[in-house]
Amino acid sequence: MSPKSIKTNPGRYFEDFRPGQILNHATPRTVSDGDAALTLALSGGRHALFSSAPFARSCGLAPAPLDPLLVFHVVFGKTVPDISLNAVANLGYAQGRFLASVHSGDTLSASSEVLGVKETSNGKTGVVYVRTTGINQYGLPVLSYVRWVLVRKRDAASPAPADSAPRTAACVPAADLVVPAGLNFSAYDFDVAGAPHAFEDYEVGEKIDHVDGMVVEEAEAQMATRLYQNTAKVHFNQFERNKDPSGRRLVYGGVVISTARSLSFNGLENAGLILGINAGRHVNPYFAGGTLFAWSEVLDAQTLAGRDDVGALRLRLVATRDRPCADFPDKDASGAYPAEVVLDLDYWAAVPRRG
Amino acid sequence: MSPKSIKTNPGRYFEDFRPGQILNHATPRTVSDGDAALTLALSGGRHALFSSAPFARSCGLAPAPLDPLLVFHVVFGKTVPDISLNAVANLGYAQGRFLASVHSGDTLSASSEVLGVKETSNGKTGVVYVRTTGINQYGLPVLSYVRWVLVRKRDAASPAPADSAPRTAACVPAADLVVPAGLNFSAYDFDVAGAPHAFEDYEVGEKIDHVDGMVVEEAEAQMATRLYQNTAKVHFNQFERNKDPSGRRLVYGGVVISTARSLSFNGLENAGLILGINAGRHVNPYFAGGTLFAWSEVLDAQTLAGRDDVGALRLRLVATRDRPCADFPDKDASGAYPAEVVLDLDYWAAVPRRG
Amino acid sequence: MSPKSIKTNPGRYFEDFRPGQILNHATPRTVSDGDAALTLALSGGRHALFSSAPFARSCGLAPAPLDPLLVFHVVFGKTVPDISLNAVANLGYAQGRFLASVHSGDTLSASSEVLGVKETSNGKTGVVYVRTTGINQYGLPVLSYVRWVLVRKRDAASPAPADSAPRTAACVPAADLVVPAGLNFSAYDFDVAGAPHAFEDYEVGEKIDHVDGMVVEEAEAQMATRLYQNTAKVHFNQFERNKDPSGRRLVYGGVVISTARSLSFNGLENAGLILGINAGRHVNPYFAGGTLFAWSEVLDAQTLAGRDDVGALRLRLVATRDRPCADFPDKDASGAYPAEVVLDLDYWAAVPRRG
Repeated sequence: MSPKSIKTNPGRYFEDFRPGQILNHATPRTVSDGDAALTLALSGGRHALFSSAPFARSCGLAPAPLDPLLVFHVVFGKTVPDISLNAVANLGYAQGRFLASVHSGDTLSASSEVLGVKETSNGKTGVVYVRTTGINQYGLPVLSYVRWVLVRKRDAASPAPADSAPRTAACVPAADLVVPAGLNFSAYDFDVAGAPHAFEDYEVGEKIDHVDGMVVEEAEAQMATRLYQNTAKVHFNQFERNKDPSGRRLVYGGVVISTARSLSFNGLENAGLILGINAGRHVNPYFAGGTLFAWSEVLDAQTLAGRDDVGALRLRLVATRDRPCADFPDKDASGAYPAEVVLDLDYWAAVPRRG
Repeated sequence: MSPKSIKTNPGRYFEDFRPGQILNHATPRTVSDGDAALTLALSGGRHALFSSAPFARSCGLAPAPLDPLLVFHVVFGKTVPDISLNAVANLGYAQGRFLASVHSGDTLSASSEVLGVKETSNGKTGVVYVRTTGINQYGLPVLSYVRWVLVRKRDAASPAPADSAPRTAACVPAADLVVPAGLNFSAYDFDVAGAPHAFEDYEVGEKIDHVDGMVVEEAEAQMATRLYQNTAKVHFNQFERNKDPSGRRLVYGGVVISTARSLSFNGLENAGLILGINAGRHVNPYFAGGTLFAWSEVLDAQTLAGRDDVGALRLRLVATRDRPCADFPDKDASGAYPAEVVLDLDYWAAVPRRG
Repeated sequence: MSPKSIKTNPGRYFEDFRPGQILNHATPRTVSDGDAALTLALSGGRHALFSSAPFARSCGLAPAPLDPLLVFHVVFGKTVPDISLNAVANLGYAQGRFLASVHSGDTLSASSEVLGVKETSNGKTGVVYVRTTGINQYGLPVLSYVRWVLVRKRDAASPAPADSAPRTAACVPAADLVVPAGLNFSAYDFDVAGAPHAFEDYEVGEKIDHVDGMVVEEAEAQMATRLYQNTAKVHFNQFERNKDPSGRRLVYGGVVISTARSLSFNGLENAGLILGINAGRHVNPYFAGGTLFAWSEVLDAQTLAGRDDVGALRLRLVATRDRPCADFPDKDASGAYPAEVVLDLDYWAAVPRRG
């Protein structure tokens, strides 16, 4: 009989993670204008900073930066074979910061450090906390974030490790945000960008219904997920998914984030430059074919040291499926979400000041 | 209670348009090789001029030009938030001229002038006529066309404005067509381009069945429409469309135009370079999944002043859904179209002369 | 009555092919970073050599090469209008060799020589054998392969030509394989590439279940096929396909090849550089929506003259639809395949030696 190879990657189980462990992820990825065009075609972005090289140049950014969410998805994708191949669920993000612009022609790599582990009470799974860092071809960090995932144990009988779950801050302090080198919003052209709303025009507590709705088709979700080289089985293997109660492939949460962020253009036209990710939860699964809607809430507004051209808005982006957001569907007092809410993302964006 | 933001764009209603008004559209767009590749992938183009940089160079065009229809769709897309967000229907195009080649790396912007308005007899809607101009990063015009759309009134009770509807010429005079700078078809390689048919081989009145059929999938229609940053709700918001009798998202008419033009390669291999758009009507809606077919009629053939390398063919491109075109499905004597006809486009193309 | 044009390409019938005939295919194609990005998005590739320019450079390849399968599909696409528009089936490939790297910005053209013809016993069809050569903008060959297709006769009554079917070798001799100029795997970084398996780690007879499954959606299949400018009607014309017993558009076999090869990354991470195609059969049709799985068998392992950095693995890649490959579904003793097997491809890949 022919030997059966054991060369394929079975993915790590909960027992395979130890605090302090460093995982260097494979498959560096050179990003290009092709990725930028696909990003537009797949998510519908319209922020001038990522649509127009001359506009970016007028903001001090030349060459033009790629959308930070593209960078996030590419870096995230690299981590999947090492971290979440056997994940049950992606539980959350925290302490994310974009540290440098990424341009067409740059090459992204990623590594992760295991921050801690904690077995769940049923003994079958555990939560793994990692800090992932994305670097460019010069070895300079471009992105860093914490993520925690629920991972299957290989053997339910294996003993629980000591609880080493880290405490994650609820929010990146505004003082820790990194404004891209060269950025200068002092001559920001609001007309060209599509709306007059400046940093000063948003008030804490304000809610914005982004009005528009957009479907993500299965082909679009798969293409985006492949573009990010994210190989999680739930996104592609329908044969396997037929055994799931939903019977559906799950759309990669990053596709929901990018689509919701594009919808948020309608009201947040000048908040395209994401500086940090404070928290993020995929509250309910999203399946292709549903219409995504979104609303935002201004959680905070902070000036930045030594800058009068740009401020940071802390925004909460909530996305729903098949439910318009005129009434701002939200969690209740107990923290439970309506079934139509699929995303609750908390992030910082750089917004031009009127000066 | 949290303040509800009114920052989102509600779109203009009929009452918001006045003759002479200038609308500078937001979101300049740098087009790239990525857009060119997506254009091929989404529409199936095969014209050598937009497929091969060396072929374009052999025709005097270096760098290679992007497909004029890509330019049209991108410019058109910019106008949607300002003009047709509340449009009931896109009624027609006229007097369109491509004025300069657009290349990978160029940035397109657009503005529109309101030429006139005319309330419809039911008092609930009105027709708005605009001339839209697309410019490149140097401020040079690359495209100009007239379009009229049926727009909802905000208030049916508001008084009708004076009828200021312009008269639009049925056809761009051949003398007004602009041949791209540098173009020289005197060494045009018909073999490489795929067919021997030169300007001289087409006769007025000739009809060509393009034979092939092609489906546009919902994902393809959406991706193209997002690539053009066209945000019209009817193309993306299925939840809202469920209330429409069709229950379907409408495919952006430009997707139909590009697909039909690609089908027309089979018989019009050397007529890829569109110089002008005389008229265009989306006669019936096209929904994703239908098979598009197309036929063409040669309406006119004009030599161009001082040129013996290139002539202009005036062509009528008719597209159908789920109906082959061997019998050239057409409007009847009363001007009524068969239900399967979805497009009737009248345009000028530059075609090499045999010399 | 208007004249009916006969300018459209009806495609060649069996009677139109003669041994020795040279067919110069139309529509040269400049490939770009946009095509590379779409290739990733559509097939899910993760081989570092085609994902990262710095990785390619560290292997002696700068500029970075495009995926040889993209080159194959583009060259193949050019042949369709001249060879297989009236084909009943694509019967096989043989003696394929990649002869030079292709880079972003290169322009591909193709020509084919008819090697022989053989009428089938029913008198209604015949097999046409061609050798197709792809060249770049300098006229240098980048790919050469033999293909045979079953083509309809125009007239069943036309006499059978003499049998001139060539004999095709079952395998390209390893000594004839062309290693890309500059390639040097002596500093190959296995960690970055994603797996430690070197040439020495594979043994003849070894079988690898690639585990993962992936759906190809109709939109994805069409976009890939248009990107390759492959116009075969069976891939696009649903109206016509409604008359077929399947009622379905057929997915271009090259899409199956590329998807299966991407799946094979899981176990063959370092075998991305295809040097030759020995044989290939689309054993059963694949329709969009099915989940593709794949397994590989190591058929041979050959060192290459004068090289200790790289060896050649001869691999058999078998793909199935809706059937996992843990039990390596295969043809039986009579050569009959299970209904779930859709592809049986035999190729050579360059694999780094441990040195």
